Amino acid sequence: MRPNPFTLLATDPLSKARRGRLVTARGIIETPIFMPVGTQATVKCCAPEELRALGAQIILGNTYHLFVRPGMDVIRHFGGLHRFMSWNGPILTDSGGFQVFSLARLRRVTEEGVHFQNHVDGTPMFLGPREAMEIQAALGSDIAMLFDECPPFPCAYDDAAASLERTLRWAARCREVETPGLKFGIVQGSSYPDLRRHSAEALVQLGFDGYAVGGVSVGEPEPEMMAAVEHAEPFLPAEKPRYAMGLGTPPQMVEMIARGIDMFDCVLPTRLARNGTAFTRAGTIALKNAGFAKDERPIEEGCACPACRTFSRGYLRHLVKAEEILGLRAITEHNLHFYLNLMAGARAHLDAGTFAEFRREFVGGYRPRETSAAVEET
Amino acid sequence: MRPNPFTLLATDPLSKARRGRLVTARGIIETPIFMPVGTQATVKCCAPEELRALGAQIILGNTYHLFVRPGMDVIRHFGGLHRFMSWNGPILTDSGGFQVFSLARLRRVTEEGVHFQNHVDGTPMFLGPREAMEIQAALGSDIAMLFDECPPFPCAYDDAAASLERTLRWAARCREVETPGLKFGIVQGSSYPDLRRHSAEALVQLGFDGYAVGGVSVGEPEPEMMAAVEHAEPFLPAEKPRYAMGLGTPPQMVEMIARGIDMFDCVLPTRLARNGTAFTRAGTIALKNAGFAKDERPIEEGCACPACRTFSRGYLRHLVKAEEILGLRAITEHNLHFYLNLMAGARAHLDAGTFAEFRREFVGGYRPRETSAAVEET
Repeated sequence: MRPNPFTLLATDPLSKARRGRLVTARGIIETPIFMPVGTQATVKCCAPEELRALGAQIILGNTYHLFVRPGMDVIRHFGGLHRFMSWNGPILTDSGGFQVFSLARLRRVTEEGVHFQNHVDGTPMFLGPREAMEIQAALGSDIAMLFDECPPFPCAYDDAAASLERTLRWAARCREVETPGLKFGIVQGSSYPDLRRHSAEALVQLGFDGYAVGGVSVGEPEPEMMAAVEHAEPFLPAEKPRYAMGLGTPPQMVEMIARGIDMFDCVLPTRLARNGTAFTRAGTIALKNAGFAKDERPIEEGCACPACRTFSRGYLRHLVKAEEILGLRAITEHNLHFYLNLMAGARAHLDAGTFAEFRREFVGGYRPRETSAAVEET
Repeated sequence: MRPNPFTLLATDPLSKARRGRLVTARGIIETPIFMPVGTQATVKCCAPEELRALGAQIILGNTYHLFVRPGMDVIRHFGGLHRFMSWNGPILTDSGGFQVFSLARLRRVTEEGVHFQNHVDGTPMFLGPREAMEIQAALGSDIAMLFDECPPFPCAYDDAAASLERTLRWAARCREVETPGLKFGIVQGSSYPDLRRHSAEALVQLGFDGYAVGGVSVGEPEPEMMAAVEHAEPFLPAEKPRYAMGLGTPPQMVEMIARGIDMFDCVLPTRLARNGTAFTRAGTIALKNAGFAKDERPIEEGCACPACRTFSRGYLRHLVKAEEILGLRAITEHNLHFYLNLMAGARAHLDAGTFAEFRREFVGGYRPRETSAAVEET
C-alpha cells in the first residue's frame, strides 16, 4: 500500500463525527464532504467552472455508464475522464457493480464477473473485478471503488452471505489490479450485523485507502440504513476515510457524519431539481405549487448561490411550469450549493467544537417530506 | 411621435447595408443586430449574465406566450418582464399576432381581434390590437410590435389584400394605445409586390419608430423571402430602423443586411442546438455524427465562445448522444455567439467600409445544409 493519504484532524467528543483531510493527486479534499454525481461525464446541467464556483472539491464518475457510452475507446483517446469532461479536480469513480445489478438487463453472474446487456442498446457486455479496475485506471480515477455485488433489499441471509463471499473474493482480485489513484473497499452484508462486521474486517485485512458502506439507499427504511453504517463503522480503522454510498437527505447526511462517515454522494440535489424541488433549511419546497406564483423571495433567504442572488421563486415557478431548462439549471445549482454548504457548515462546526449544536439545530429545523432516502443514480 | 431614436451612422456604397444606432430607455443598440429569442421569459438554456457576456444587446419576449403563461397578473405583480426575468437590457416584444395564427386553436377573427383557445390548456382567450399593446405596455417592452394578421404561404391575392386591410386598420388602433417604449409597424402583403408597397406606405403614413417586414419565414422559398423585403424596403424611410421578423440562416441575414435590414431575430441558433447542430463559418455541423466521436477540436477553431474554449467536439457529441443538458447549453451558447459575432463582424466591416468583401467571403464560404429558413418560434 501507498502511504495513508488521509489525516484525521479532529473528532467530535459527543459523537463519532470526524474532521479530516484526504490528499489525492489532483487536489486535497476536506471532509466531511459531499461529492456531486457526474454519472455520464457531466454533473447534470452544470458546467465545470460552475462546479468549481460552487466549491465542489471532488465529483463522481460512473464506470458502468462510461463503459457503455461513449465507451473506453473514446475515453482512452482523450487521455481519461478529466480531460474528456474538462474537470481537473479529483474524481471518484463507482465500479459499475451497483449499476450492473440495477440497470443492465439479462444478467448472468459468474465467479469471473457479470455478463449483461447494456440498458442503452442491449449490446452484450461483461464486467468483472479486473475489468472494473482496468476501466477505472483508464478513466484516470483519483479514487477507484472495488467491483462488488449489491444485493437488493430485502435479501435472505444465505443469499446475502453468499453474495458477500463472492464480493470479498472479487475484492482480493481488485486489489491486484494497479490503478493510478486510491482504492476504496465496499462493505456489504445487507441488513445482517454479523455480515457487515465480517465484510468490514475482511476488507480491512486486505487493506485499502478507504472504506465505503454499500448496499444502503436501496429501498430500505431509514433505521435499517443507519444500522448498516452502525454495524460496519466500529470495524473500520479510524485513520482511513469512510464513505456512505448513494445517500441521502440533508438530515441523513448530518446523522451519518455523527456516526463516523466522512464522504457522501447522492443524486437527490440534481434529480429533485428536475422535478422543481428545492432544498431549504426548513425542508424541501415544490416550486411547481401555485402558491409560489407571486413569491418575490429567493428559494432561501440569505442563500449565497447564484440562483438565489438572481431569481425569485415566482420566476422559477414559471420556468418549471413552462419546462424551461433555465429553471432546472437554477434549482440544480441551488441544491448542489445547499448540499456543499451543509458539509462546509459541518466542517466549520467540527473545527470549532460545536458540531452537536449544529446537528441538533439543523436536524431539528429540517422537516422531512416525501423525498425518499432510497434514491440512487440509475 | 417622440423624437427619432435611430441614427443612421453609415451606408454601404455597394449595397443597401446600413450601420446604425437605436436608443432605447434601457440601452443603446448598435445595428445591424441579432436579437436572441426569449419566448417564455427566458432565452432557452441561457442565464441573463451569460447573455450579457455573449454581448446580447437586446432580447425578444413574446406577448402571446407570456399572456398565456404565467399570465399578466403575475407579470404585473413583478413590475414587468425585465424584473421578472432579471434582464435589465432592452426587450423587444412580439405582439402575439403571429402566434395566435400559428399556435392557438379554434381561432375566430373579428374586426376587434382574435378569439382563440390557448395551446397550453385550451382556455378561451382574446387578443386584439388594444389588448396586444396594453399587454406589451404592462410587460414594460422597450420596443412594442403592432398586432397584425400573418397570412400563411401561399395566400391568394384577395385573401392577402383583405387581411392586409384589416392589419392596417388594427395598426391605426395600436397607434392610439400608449406604451412606454418604441413602437414598430409590421409590413404584410404576402408575396404581392403591390400589397407590400401599399402596406409600407400606409404604415409610414401613420408613422412609427421603426418598421418590420413580417409574413416572411413562413414556409416560402428563399427567393420569395428576399423579394418580400425588396418590395417593401424602398418605401420605408431611411432614417428609421428596419427589422426582418423571424429569420434566418447566417447567409440570409448577411443578404438581408445588404438589402437594407438592420434587425433580426431567429430561433435557429437555440432550436438547432437542441438537435445537436452547431454553426460554423463553413456551415452547420451535426455533432451527433459518429465522425466527431474522437474529434479533439472545438466546434470552430479560433472561436472565443465559452463552449469552444472548454469543450471538444468529441465530448459535445457524447453529451448530445447521452441527452445531457450541458451539451445543449454549450451548443446554444456557441450558436448565439456565432449569430451575435456575425452581426459584430458586419458592423465592423460597415464601419471600415469593407462590407462587400465581408459579404462575399462569408456567404461564399458558408455551405447551406438542410436547415430551412422557414423556422419561427412556436
